[in-house]
Amino acid sequence: MTATLSKTFHFPVQIYYEDTDFSGVVYHPNFLKYFERAREHVIGANVLNQLWQHQQLGFAVYRTDMLCHDGVEFADIIDVRTQFYFESKYRTVWKQEIWRPNASKPAVTATIEMVCMNKKRQLAPMPIDLINTLQQQA
Amino acid sequence: MTATLSKTFHFPVQIYYEDTDFSGVVYHPNFLKYFERAREHVIGANVLNQLWQHQQLGFAVYRTDMLCHDGVEFADIIDVRTQFYFESKYRTVWKQEIWRPNASKPAVTATIEMVCMNKKRQLAPMPIDLINTLQQQA
Amino acid sequence: MTATLSKTFHFPVQIYYEDTDFSGVVYHPNFLKYFERAREHVIGANVLNQLWQHQQLGFAVYRTDMLCHDGVEFADIIDVRTQFYFESKYRTVWKQEIWRPNASKPAVTATIEMVCMNKKRQLAPMPIDLINTLQQQA
Amino acid sequence: MTATLSKTFHFPVQIYYEDTDFSGVVYHPNFLKYFERAREHVIGANVLNQLWQHQQLGFAVYRTDMLCHDGVEFADIIDVRTQFYFESKYRTVWKQEIWRPNASKPAVTATIEMVCMNKKRQLAPMPIDLINTLQQQA
Repeated sequence: MTATLSKTFHFPVQIYYEDTDFSGVVYHPNFLKYFERAREHVIGANVLNQLWQHQQLGFAVYRTDMLCHDGVEFADIIDVRTQFYFESKYRTVWKQEIWRPNASKPAVTATIEMVCMNKKRQLAPMPIDLINTLQQQA
Repeated sequence: MTATLSKTFHFPVQIYYEDTDFSGVVYHPNFLKYFERAREHVIGANVLNQLWQHQQLGFAVYRTDMLCHDGVEFADIIDVRTQFYFESKYRTVWKQEIWRPNASKPAVTATIEMVCMNKKRQLAPMPIDLINTLQQQA
Repeated sequence: MTATLSKTFHFPVQIYYEDTDFSGVVYHPNFLKYFERAREHVIGANVLNQLWQHQQLGFAVYRTDMLCHDGVEFADIIDVRTQFYFESKYRTVWKQEIWRPNASKPAVTATIEMVCMNKKRQLAPMPIDLINTLQQQA
Repeated sequence: MTATLSKTFHFPVQIYYEDTDFSGVVYHPNFLKYFERAREHVIGANVLNQLWQHQQLGFAVYRTDMLCHDGVEFADIIDVRTQFYFESKYRTVWKQEIWRPNASKPAVTATIEMVCMNKKRQLAPMPIDLINTLQQQA
């Protein structure tokens, strides 16, 4: 298990009515949704589903530190950029960014820590298979 | 079990940033959220929680027919008005409305049907206790 | 302007954590979000944005009549099927369905009416250009 | 303008279906919504609305640093505790916590920075009136 940063994964998100608020830009908690969708694509929604159904394990967000540099607007197709590393067998750390089209710097940046937990919400080690799969595609 | 309409229950909802979209008014799917919150207050969130945890029973929305007559704005405190009746021991029907402050007619009106289901999503009769409780406060 | 139903448009939506509730399936108001996303893809998010910014026109949902036949689950990739017709120069009607993978019938069906409005929320006729564009791709 | 922490404001939030996900607890981005609702109650939704409509000023979230210590469940009525201070005439910092009923420590803690902006999303000083009003109730 290496603590080095993975490659950068790219995930596009289109901004719909539901994402904005009356100030005209994306409502800030929604950025955490896009980051989660992007992480689910890195890990695999089916992998997460199997993990939960068959091994009673899931990932819980422990910490999110997010900086909003720029507003994101309706009809934008943003690029969610994701890198991650293993901090321990219990914990992964994700460096994520949101880029608007043709931007020269990210609109939003975040560091997000996730821990592996069982259904009683007790800390649990990630299964070796999952770690291996994630390391291979990293 | 009577099929007559209950009294009208009132439930206030304040409209926050999260409720609006960039057009400046409440994003229409959110009205279904307010209707559900109001129903949960009629039935009791704890009652619903006990029903799910101990009897593996829940209410699923089967049909929603909603008319949006007027926009609802940020900082409004709306009055969600709710009446219901039992259509059968499996099914309740809810007549719900959203009123803006000082309005002479509702901004949104809806008819919502809910069915009682077990965790396998099979139709199940509502427990007698629940029916009695609901009828008493109706 | 013809009142005949358009062809069927297909739009895939992946179900994420954010879409579900503790009962284990998609929270029903979210279906209205998926229907709206699909409509935005038929009309074009950029077209909608231009319409709003330059002509002060938008579409408001006037009525939604939705039937939920079946639960939709985490990690599903659903197919949102959309047909529409013009009821008048002010109003479009949308027949929309949600299909789970390999399903033999839709999980959710809906009829949704949208009206064209200006920023003061007064009824306004759809621009001819928009009607023509929609009719051509229909 | 003092940089000292305000008193603690309390704001109750009931957890509904819409707040949870299929893992059984509150979906983490929703905590940012509750924090925002609580801030809107400290500042006043009508004050925010006037500021936006008449002075073209609003508050944008610049940074959120959130720690999720414990899951929050359906039917919980949480206590959102809020303190704030002025860092400058452009910026306020908010210390916010979520407490479950009868808990001995907070379930979620966060530090949130907000900046005052005009409608072009340029940094703008908070109006003196607003600063005075906030300081008086602090």
